[in-house]
Amino acid sequence: MPETLTFLLGGARSGKSAHAERLITQIPAPWTYIATAQAYDDEMRERISIHRDRRGEGWQTLDAPLDIAGALGSVPEGAPVLVDCLTLWLTNHMLADHDVEAECAALADVLSRPRGPWFVVSNEVGLGIVPDNALARRFRDDAGRLNQKVAAVADAVLYMVAGLPMKVK
Amino acid sequence: MPETLTFLLGGARSGKSAHAERLITQIPAPWTYIATAQAYDDEMRERISIHRDRRGEGWQTLDAPLDIAGALGSVPEGAPVLVDCLTLWLTNHMLADHDVEAECAALADVLSRPRGPWFVVSNEVGLGIVPDNALARRFRDDAGRLNQKVAAVADAVLYMVAGLPMKVK
Amino acid sequence: MPETLTFLLGGARSGKSAHAERLITQIPAPWTYIATAQAYDDEMRERISIHRDRRGEGWQTLDAPLDIAGALGSVPEGAPVLVDCLTLWLTNHMLADHDVEAECAALADVLSRPRGPWFVVSNEVGLGIVPDNALARRFRDDAGRLNQKVAAVADAVLYMVAGLPMKVK
Repeated sequence: MPETLTFLLGGARSGKSAHAERLITQIPAPWTYIATAQAYDDEMRERISIHRDRRGEGWQTLDAPLDIAGALGSVPEGAPVLVDCLTLWLTNHMLADHDVEAECAALADVLSRPRGPWFVVSNEVGLGIVPDNALARRFRDDAGRLNQKVAAVADAVLYMVAGLPMKVK
Repeated sequence: MPETLTFLLGGARSGKSAHAERLITQIPAPWTYIATAQAYDDEMRERISIHRDRRGEGWQTLDAPLDIAGALGSVPEGAPVLVDCLTLWLTNHMLADHDVEAECAALADVLSRPRGPWFVVSNEVGLGIVPDNALARRFRDDAGRLNQKVAAVADAVLYMVAGLPMKVK
Repeated sequence: MPETLTFLLGGARSGKSAHAERLITQIPAPWTYIATAQAYDDEMRERISIHRDRRGEGWQTLDAPLDIAGALGSVPEGAPVLVDCLTLWLTNHMLADHDVEAECAALADVLSRPRGPWFVVSNEVGLGIVPDNALARRFRDDAGRLNQKVAAVADAVLYMVAGLPMKVK
């Protein structure tokens, strides 16, 4: 199984997760889904449940709201993995008041040495008007920097537009 | 006249409408413009009037704030049509409290069987920070899903950046 | 030295400035940096200082919060120049209550006749939800129109995604 990192980036409802699932399921099962979402409210609970229902047989889910690296470490060598998504993981670290810069550097380091076909999903959030809110500005900056770090070490980078992939790298 | 659907997607002021007009006017007139905009306020009235002024001879305009499918049905077989734009149509249905999911599915179905060279314009709105407002979040999700549906059935998809088309499909 | 305009467009933290610096420093020094940023607050002061520190030997900085054309005119024929960025320049003119449309037309005119290898950076801000705020909507419209004008006269247009360039033109 090739040791490659594929990075899928796009806006809300751009079809990132569905496309990542299409790509990974072209590899034989079992597939590991590393979920970073935490259900803070009903809206989020519903989104998580829709995503989970779309996946079916052949999937194993690991919840990793904060420790993607640990979850990746527990997956056997050569196994296909989908991490969905980095921006929620970043949100979780920001809310926990962790050292976001250090966390991002450490994660990018782990992702730079994939041990199988790894697929990583993230949101692009920097293409709107500058937010009024200082926390939103910080999040937007941190997410942008994280995306750059991961894109730099990825073997392939896809920018999703309306469900369709554009090859960036 | 080829029966094809060309889908133009982009941000605010990305030159979507102007590019769609450039493409359609390479086909002989008459051209049908299906306008979904409703003038709620002066700002919107001004935008509609600027768009209308830019088009000139050879255009017929049909107003279809809610019923794009009906307007398309009234256009002769083989005639070139420009629908501008899907996100305003979606807004109109949301404000009227209609069943947005059903409306979007029905529209995508009609668009999957173009009866001439059809050009459809829509806004990409999902690349900024998650909006605070629940209605804005719902709109962003619904618009993203609609764009995916239309892109899936389109023969060509163009992502507009600063007035220039990037070929997605 | 070729007389070409390269336009780099992207979201916040998409690596526009760093990529522009990579491109220009492939040309022999000295390089002129035309800075449009004005330090209104500490957050901005920090950003300016980070950008300035990243550049090193071989750079000359000209501050041009309002008069990019004048700064460009003072640079010798054939010299490589980086203008960073147009959206801050636009903000400065809006805050000064100047005639933005005339300023943008005049700037695009100057940029259409580069006198050396010129690199110009701008933000794409139109891909989020329509802002509530009328001033933000106006800025988004004006920035989009300015980007279209500059892209139209540029020899090369790059859309930056997570630090990676996508060739638009």
